[in-house]
Amino acid sequence: MRFTSQTSSDGVTERHFTLDEIPGVLWTPEGARGIRPLILLGHGGRQHKTAPHITSRARRYATEGFAVVAIDAPNHGDRPQDEEFGRIAARMRAGMAAGENPSELVAGMHGYLARQAVADWQTVLTAVQHLDQVGAGPVGYCGTSMGCGLGIPLISAEPRIRAAVLGLLGVHGLAEDAARITVPVQFLVQWDDQMVPRDQSLALFDALASPEKTLQANPGKHGDVPPYEVDSSLRFFARHLN
Amino acid sequence: MRFTSQTSSDGVTERHFTLDEIPGVLWTPEGARGIRPLILLGHGGRQHKTAPHITSRARRYATEGFAVVAIDAPNHGDRPQDEEFGRIAARMRAGMAAGENPSELVAGMHGYLARQAVADWQTVLTAVQHLDQVGAGPVGYCGTSMGCGLGIPLISAEPRIRAAVLGLLGVHGLAEDAARITVPVQFLVQWDDQMVPRDQSLALFDALASPEKTLQANPGKHGDVPPYEVDSSLRFFARHLN
Repeated sequence: MRFTSQTSSDGVTERHFTLDEIPGVLWTPEGARGIRPLILLGHGGRQHKTAPHITSRARRYATEGFAVVAIDAPNHGDRPQDEEFGRIAARMRAGMAAGENPSELVAGMHGYLARQAVADWQTVLTAVQHLDQVGAGPVGYCGTSMGCGLGIPLISAEPRIRAAVLGLLGVHGLAEDAARITVPVQFLVQWDDQMVPRDQSLALFDALASPEKTLQANPGKHGDVPPYEVDSSLRFFARHLN
Repeated sequence: MRFTSQTSSDGVTERHFTLDEIPGVLWTPEGARGIRPLILLGHGGRQHKTAPHITSRARRYATEGFAVVAIDAPNHGDRPQDEEFGRIAARMRAGMAAGENPSELVAGMHGYLARQAVADWQTVLTAVQHLDQVGAGPVGYCGTSMGCGLGIPLISAEPRIRAAVLGLLGVHGLAEDAARITVPVQFLVQWDDQMVPRDQSLALFDALASPEKTLQANPGKHGDVPPYEVDSSLRFFARHLN
């Protein structure tokens, strides 16, 4: 794990790193020492590890004492794009233009990325938990849209993750992994989501095996999640990871 | 407004009162003086103003600085039952036994009670806001199941109510009043509610005209709302009434 920059402001230290070929960012409370709960932040499709809503959420969590890590998903952000991804992305765009079922096209893309993404997160998690200011404390995952599509295979495979905020995605391609998830989940739905049919969102919530799960639905389109859901997620993680 | 008893414990003062023929309870922080936000608590069917979940919720809100008032709904708790109520209740039981649509039967009962309940709440609200330790501050309403069925007509008629926690009820008989409600709403749904069909719950959430509304759904039956929803409602009221 090679740290390439470190800055601190408003009580939060932000350190960029690369681990193998994975570029990432770690946020911790300034001057943090010793074990603390860790939250993994998964970004959305065509976004990257320092998209504004990722950075602001990470800083909010770190202000409350959490360590937070975000990485670029495969073929996203500072990572190179491979040929197969290019073919799948072109196929997805063409399919959408031709009126094919977008849920199926999106699920195909997520399925392709998930194998690498799960391995990346597991590598990063192990490395970050070796840092003095993080340690092997409880771990949460937060990701919606593509962050949910890659998060569900991760959580189903990774027993270190004990609570998750997910959502803004339908059940397509995810039912089996979702049925293996039993940790507490907060699941976000945008009631007027133009990209995810409501019944498919509700079906993904249904598919989660977690005895404790809360669906939180707000009016508005895919990108209109209200800011108070960040506070709600913070209290959820505080309840389960502290 | 005639106070009939007063006790204080754990920092909360509980005072029973009658106003006209309405029996009620007022909870305030012990030693409270001056204006504070007020929450009206509406109980469920066949319950009363000091049902355990009402009392514990009221004390929790009062501990955080709110004034809280609960009253017996018409024909409930310490209030006499009228003949018409007896006929409607008998008709409801018979209809349910005969397999009639329970949503319709319940809506008929709520419709009968609502006229009196709305007038009762408005009288009590005016009187409570004249008390020194409450005053004319911002007002919220919290009621699910029958508390939602009587609350929706109340909120649609009462501009002093600025935020509401509702739910555990379907749209039957409530669509018109719901369409007049524009204040922020937290709307609870029990995902496996044996008394309220899921699609009718979602339709009532849809019918609310509030630009800010959040549907919060948890697994389990009608009575299984998880305890963290009380905390969530508290933060919701704090956000909108403080």
